[in-house]
Amino acid sequence: MPYVNIRITKDGATAEQKEQVIRGVTHLLRDIMGKNPATTVVVIDEVDTDNWGIGGETVTQRRKQGK
Amino acid sequence: MPYVNIRITKDGATAEQKEQVIRGVTHLLRDIMGKNPATTVVVIDEVDTDNWGIGGETVTQRRKQGK
Amino acid sequence: MPYVNIRITKDGATAEQKEQVIRGVTHLLRDIMGKNPATTVVVIDEVDTDNWGIGGETVTQRRKQGK
Amino acid sequence: MPYVNIRITKDGATAEQKEQVIRGVTHLLRDIMGKNPATTVVVIDEVDTDNWGIGGETVTQRRKQGK
Amino acid sequence: MPYVNIRITKDGATAEQKEQVIRGVTHLLRDIMGKNPATTVVVIDEVDTDNWGIGGETVTQRRKQGK
Amino acid sequence: MPYVNIRITKDGATAEQKEQVIRGVTHLLRDIMGKNPATTVVVIDEVDTDNWGIGGETVTQRRKQGK
Repeated sequence: MPYVNIRITKDGATAEQKEQVIRGVTHLLRDIMGKNPATTVVVIDEVDTDNWGIGGETVTQRRKQGK
Repeated sequence: MPYVNIRITKDGATAEQKEQVIRGVTHLLRDIMGKNPATTVVVIDEVDTDNWGIGGETVTQRRKQGK
Repeated sequence: MPYVNIRITKDGATAEQKEQVIRGVTHLLRDIMGKNPATTVVVIDEVDTDNWGIGGETVTQRRKQGK
Repeated sequence: MPYVNIRITKDGATAEQKEQVIRGVTHLLRDIMGKNPATTVVVIDEVDTDNWGIGGETVTQRRKQGK
Repeated sequence: MPYVNIRITKDGATAEQKEQVIRGVTHLLRDIMGKNPATTVVVIDEVDTDNWGIGGETVTQRRKQGK
Repeated sequence: MPYVNIRITKDGATAEQKEQVIRGVTHLLRDIMGKNPATTVVVIDEVDTDNWGIGGETVTQRRKQGK
């Protein structure tokens, strides 16, 4: 009964990509650790680039600088 | 001074329902564990059904199939 | 299928208290929001008082000062 | 390579304020704990006042009462 | 630069299993969403069965009942 | 009333370092965003290097390789 939280920047991930990630992570935990897929929960959070920082800068700032 | 995070699918919970849940959880932690309500924080996250997976499928997919 | 995370300071909560909190929160979400108890997950994290801060101080510091 | 999650109520924080918080927290972890800024991730979540509870009430309720 | 948090019950997962899960999730996010593996962070939390509830009961209780 | 969660690898951070980080983050949120220090909660999680992955490898693996 794992709980998985995936946080990514909001960059137009499609419903299909999210379905594939959810299916993939669920199968991975079943195959490697024997976890029951029926009770595996996966929640994806899509975060605005103004609200995501790495290296002391927001992703918005980094993209403006071509990083 | 507990911190409680409640994550649910976005399904039109009303402000009143959220107030009741926040009050209820705060009282529960006071009554069972003696936690101080004044510093108990409860945060509710409402998550799009495309972003919530269980059993390897999104809730959007499951509802289409009548699950 | 809610996911609830309850974070408290590590203060000797008993297994019975944790059972009661888990049952209570699960019933609350069923009664107020109609959430299915069978797929409601509640995870309790017990955190060392050196690692929990409020008001700019750790709980360890506050207790030494009788706060 | 710390991961920091800052949750605040949604109250019109500007992009500049968020940049400053991200930079400040990243430098703090470098200066105090020697953490590498290049791999320090900071994510800010802005939460609706209907969804944030303290003292058993939502922030929306408390503000109406002038608390 | 995704951040992934995987929470499972503490059941003797080996270092090798954890390595495989971390590698697998990182590759999945690269292959499906084009996320950069170099900055993908995955954190696994192993939680005591007394502290994990599902269906209103702790996993400890459920296992005693053979569920 | 912000809630801040700081996750770092378990590397012998001292109680003093944790106090300084908690104080520093609390003051930062007051100075930049006007947040009330009295209700600012900061929780530090120290995570085993076997359970922390970056670049598809655990920190344990990376340190063995001198990364």
